[in-house]
Amino acid sequence: MKTLKIPEATITRLSVYSRYLAHVDRRGVTTISSGEIADGVGVSPAQVRKDLAYFGEFGTRGVGYNVKDLYWHIIKILGLNTTWSVVIIGAGNLGTALSMYGGFRERGFKVVGIFDNDPHKIGYRLNGVEIYPMERLKEIIEREKANIAIIAVPADHAQDVANLLVETSIQGILNFAPRALNVPDHIELRNVDLSVNLELLTFNLAVRRNMKGAR
Amino acid sequence: MKTLKIPEATITRLSVYSRYLAHVDRRGVTTISSGEIADGVGVSPAQVRKDLAYFGEFGTRGVGYNVKDLYWHIIKILGLNTTWSVVIIGAGNLGTALSMYGGFRERGFKVVGIFDNDPHKIGYRLNGVEIYPMERLKEIIEREKANIAIIAVPADHAQDVANLLVETSIQGILNFAPRALNVPDHIELRNVDLSVNLELLTFNLAVRRNMKGAR
Repeated sequence: MKTLKIPEATITRLSVYSRYLAHVDRRGVTTISSGEIADGVGVSPAQVRKDLAYFGEFGTRGVGYNVKDLYWHIIKILGLNTTWSVVIIGAGNLGTALSMYGGFRERGFKVVGIFDNDPHKIGYRLNGVEIYPMERLKEIIEREKANIAIIAVPADHAQDVANLLVETSIQGILNFAPRALNVPDHIELRNVDLSVNLELLTFNLAVRRNMKGAR
Repeated sequence: MKTLKIPEATITRLSVYSRYLAHVDRRGVTTISSGEIADGVGVSPAQVRKDLAYFGEFGTRGVGYNVKDLYWHIIKILGLNTTWSVVIIGAGNLGTALSMYGGFRERGFKVVGIFDNDPHKIGYRLNGVEIYPMERLKEIIEREKANIAIIAVPADHAQDVANLLVETSIQGILNFAPRALNVPDHIELRNVDLSVNLELLTFNLAVRRNMKGAR
């Protein structure tokens, strides 16, 4: 399938384009060119056209794209034309921050349960969502038809949590623990490394320093 | 400068390669092929060679790369051959989680101060690092020679914090608040959108669903 070869950077930019399209749609804009999208998000017009070309023909030459049509097309490509039910494992600082994160709900993600092994936390609610004991993981995932799990536990516990998730109907795992995890192929696993974001910053800072040095 | 055109995905993969090289170096491996790196991190050998080719000639045909040399070369490209001093603005759940995050120190990032406007938090320490009042931002950044600031405050306060940072010697800002920020060109700004990680997961889950549907 063609879509399997889409670079991850393209998917990330599609996500950015869709937010920008939602923004201009709210301002009443109905038609937009690749150049306007490019200006709005800070990439080249050629990049916008190349990214969209992966998914077939959009827009009309000389007229541009219909904002709502393009928005919904991208939302569908990203798999966001449906609500995803998410459980968060770990009610520590990171799990708590993630359960409060406004950006998830905006994009169709619904947190339906939080899990922790600390008895003092069980029964409390974060942003309206109950904290359950780990023993109820499978039961709650099935009751709430959760399809995505976010792992926000210490690194040493992350594989144990992944092993428990494999026994449930979870389809995708987003792992924030700085540890490589093993899961069977039928589960989609994505690791988030928070350091990488700092390294993308220091790469650019190093480039700036070298440019100064070269002058 | 050639390095300015490097795709972000390449930088991200360099970060991944360097971690893998550190791992095999600890196991006593001295020479490695692009195929072995590719296997170790789950990309194609051609991708490894293409990524490294951006930065000139490495390795010897038929022999491979010297593990330590390649590791240090990548570390230098990423700007990590120096210690970066980091301040975190916001001692809420996310700021606390980031200040505890083990992955930063491993890669040469040193958190030197945390800032909050809640008087009850001032003077406490997170992972050994003091929480200061916002009024001391400029003073502490200059005393500690901090070059990077992480914004972990609610979206409505993020631009105000950025405005304060612009008045200091900070060179780079990593913004976790879900809000676009304006800073002058001499400051390197990077926004982290935690939802994008979930969307890269749902994109792949949608592809899997479509493949099943197509069978």
